Amino acid sequence: MKKFVVLASAIMVALSGVTFTAVAQDMTPEQQAAAAIDTRKSLFKVLRFNLGPIAGMARGAPFDAEVAERNARRIASLATMIPEVLAHDTSDFDNIETTALDIIWDNQDDIAAKAQALMDNANAFADVAAGGDMAATLGAFRQLGGSCGNCHDTYRVDED
Amino acid sequence: MKKFVVLASAIMVALSGVTFTAVAQDMTPEQQAAAAIDTRKSLFKVLRFNLGPIAGMARGAPFDAEVAERNARRIASLATMIPEVLAHDTSDFDNIETTALDIIWDNQDDIAAKAQALMDNANAFADVAAGGDMAATLGAFRQLGGSCGNCHDTYRVDED
Repeated sequence: MKKFVVLASAIMVALSGVTFTAVAQDMTPEQQAAAAIDTRKSLFKVLRFNLGPIAGMARGAPFDAEVAERNARRIASLATMIPEVLAHDTSDFDNIETTALDIIWDNQDDIAAKAQALMDNANAFADVAAGGDMAATLGAFRQLGGSCGNCHDTYRVDED
Repeated sequence: MKKFVVLASAIMVALSGVTFTAVAQDMTPEQQAAAAIDTRKSLFKVLRFNLGPIAGMARGAPFDAEVAERNARRIASLATMIPEVLAHDTSDFDNIETTALDIIWDNQDDIAAKAQALMDNANAFADVAAGGDMAATLGAFRQLGGSCGNCHDTYRVDED
């Protein structure tokens, strides 16, 4: 293993400032929960960053098939991370603001299925967008958008 | 266009709670800057979330070729978003905490090139990891980790 320890040192230098010092065992359960919540919020923000332009096109912004396809492929990749960021049960820490409902942690299989559906629908949308047809692409968006609501309705605080 | 307006309404219902009301034109320049900073921080947190397990393996955690490949593919996808989240010049708002250096906004071509290098190195790493060989995979990580430092050294506040 010595070889890898030496390699690891070189890598840590190479990473230059990407510190991973705040490893779980050095953190209190509350700090771990806060970090988990921060990560999951970040994931959904990045997802939204990519969904935004597509939703904009559906509402009349100029159609750009390339952006629609690209962003949907990214959403498919991001969707695979959802079960991981929703795996850490943070329900013991009501003082940390979150819109995640506590039933999430008893429904990991359903979360995984819904994340898979989002991935599948994002890829299906991207496939249609790749064809460049505006009507077909925006038509396919209903399915993709539905994948978001499908999970929010069940597992997120209703903000409407 | 009427068809799309009707469709858009259906989509907005389907999105159920994914509101895109805070569009740029309704926000002050400071609010826009804060939103841009929030989005870019979120992207790098998600990137780090995926890099962490790989860096852990390099430091002696059990080797998992599948996770190494999967996370590197995700990093390749996330890397494509870096130029977009670093496109919004937020240097007028020193009151918003950020580690981004102001030279970023004069060096968009270099940012794009470095993001491309990260994507290429992440995919190259994923290709090696797909072979399942631990030594080869961890050896390839040096290049991937270097892509992070390469950008941080130039464009980020030195926190070391």
